[in-house]
Amino acid sequence: MSELRYNFVSDEWVVLATDRAKRPKDFLKDTGPPKVLPEYKPDCPFCAGNETKTPLELFRIGSKDSWKVRAVYNKFAALSSRGELIHHDSGIYRSCSGVGVHEVIIEHPAHNACLPLLQDAEVADIINVYQQRYCAVRKDKRFEAIIIFKNHGPSAGTSLEHPHSQLIATPVVPPQLNKRRDQSFKFYKNKKSCLLCRIIAEELKAKTRIIEEGKSFVSFIPYAALSPFHLWIIPKRHMGSFDLINQEEVLDLARTLKETLSKLYYGLADPDYNYTLHSLPLKKGEDDYFHWYLSVIPRISQLAGFELGSGMFINTSVPEEGAAFLRGVRP
Amino acid sequence: MSELRYNFVSDEWVVLATDRAKRPKDFLKDTGPPKVLPEYKPDCPFCAGNETKTPLELFRIGSKDSWKVRAVYNKFAALSSRGELIHHDSGIYRSCSGVGVHEVIIEHPAHNACLPLLQDAEVADIINVYQQRYCAVRKDKRFEAIIIFKNHGPSAGTSLEHPHSQLIATPVVPPQLNKRRDQSFKFYKNKKSCLLCRIIAEELKAKTRIIEEGKSFVSFIPYAALSPFHLWIIPKRHMGSFDLINQEEVLDLARTLKETLSKLYYGLADPDYNYTLHSLPLKKGEDDYFHWYLSVIPRISQLAGFELGSGMFINTSVPEEGAAFLRGVRP
Repeated sequence: MSELRYNFVSDEWVVLATDRAKRPKDFLKDTGPPKVLPEYKPDCPFCAGNETKTPLELFRIGSKDSWKVRAVYNKFAALSSRGELIHHDSGIYRSCSGVGVHEVIIEHPAHNACLPLLQDAEVADIINVYQQRYCAVRKDKRFEAIIIFKNHGPSAGTSLEHPHSQLIATPVVPPQLNKRRDQSFKFYKNKKSCLLCRIIAEELKAKTRIIEEGKSFVSFIPYAALSPFHLWIIPKRHMGSFDLINQEEVLDLARTLKETLSKLYYGLADPDYNYTLHSLPLKKGEDDYFHWYLSVIPRISQLAGFELGSGMFINTSVPEEGAAFLRGVRP
Repeated sequence: MSELRYNFVSDEWVVLATDRAKRPKDFLKDTGPPKVLPEYKPDCPFCAGNETKTPLELFRIGSKDSWKVRAVYNKFAALSSRGELIHHDSGIYRSCSGVGVHEVIIEHPAHNACLPLLQDAEVADIINVYQQRYCAVRKDKRFEAIIIFKNHGPSAGTSLEHPHSQLIATPVVPPQLNKRRDQSFKFYKNKKSCLLCRIIAEELKAKTRIIEEGKSFVSFIPYAALSPFHLWIIPKRHMGSFDLINQEEVLDLARTLKETLSKLYYGLADPDYNYTLHSLPLKKGEDDYFHWYLSVIPRISQLAGFELGSGMFINTSVPEEGAAFLRGVRP
């Protein structure tokens, strides 16, 4: 029989369809080995040498002609940093101006430098740029939250194959972040402990869902994972806001992130995926109970009418089996 | 500049990316006209003549050899109706047994009988079976909610192309339904009015987002639509639970649903879509403030890291433009 599991962090129930569960190897795409890309594409705006094709550069590691990571404005920005934040409230119709920030972080000069193939230090550079942009953007008091995320592959919603991440700052607190704060607060009030600190402690004790354990970070498939190989990477030190990460932790996150993504890359033949950094809303001081984390969602199952219409997920992979499989993958 | 709009029903903010908005015609798939399917496929378990390939039949309209609509158990059920409902609660790990119901409603004997091509009376038969199954399943006191939904096309998560819907009964209240109840309750407490009754009245007055208005139902693109051509079909009469629909309303829903889906079919070249029926949780009596509705989500944009990680949506189609386009589509 199937089992329903409750996700404390998101207040969601997941159906673990054990009767129709797939073995980890069943998820391997038919397409065979990871796609081979060229190092340079003349028409790619993110490739080294094509810098004039991007909008204004905001930050860079390295020199102009030999950069490592660049942050630029998104040419097709969903939100604009110019203008005043004005709220309209007319009965059931509420709106506000689309004030915000939408940046692109170009992770590497080479077109084919996907994250699992980089050096640890190169991944650390990417995270350093995340932190620099987070700190710069949060100074603008019009914004309530910053979301850093990555779309890898067409089914994860990317149109450009050159490795890049994005940063969006929003003038309202996104609903998921509100929900996570509510859940963390309820747990803290009842148990006098941070929910994610407790989860890490329990997961490290149980060991069955762990993928990678570093000095400062741990990656694992959560007990109530919403979809196959859905992963969390969590700092061991209690921190509400991502920008509090220190340099030693950046290096360990780089290593943990790379190792974890490598296991997807080699074990599941470079699946499309998204990752998102969940950090404390900018104007909140609830550092005691909120704990930031990164979630990685491989896009190897489809959201269908049941998921879209109920907010409940059907996961056809058992988290403990998925974790055991990924632990065994050696690049 | 873009605009953020607030969705009162779901408590979500949507970014209307007007700067990068597409014109309705831009969403037309490159694939050209709707796919042509055969009337019968020898290996399709849902085609007339292949009835032995489905699990146990639960209900049927028509005779055994000349049926119109059939409801059968799902061969790959996510939940099972056998067994006791047992809850386990061990600190941060909470689960319950996967007790529930997972049925398939085969909408027509013919493989190529997609909904926009049916007679109104044939669509009414499908809705009658929805109602019959809803009433039959709700008698089981182990269940908290019933979700009826349809996945049309591969990107909407279907693996079988023969037209069919599904019904799932769950032993917990799904989070989206909880959220919608909370929102409706808050509005009712403040305004002494049902939120959806108010929305229908305002939309019928504004007219700009209406697609179809029947005697008992109205379909429109909501003010804060989450994605391009995201639609709601709502009964004009206040009803919390779907099973309260009467026969006259079934006929009008059939007509409104068919007309609305036809506009997607002819105007957007048969896009993949999901629809879901949002009805009152089974054990609740809040008929005063909850109002059932059907939401239709064409799958013509990808959910990416921002949506998955924030719960906020970026919609590249302006609801008023989308509605004007669909109103103009004549089958």
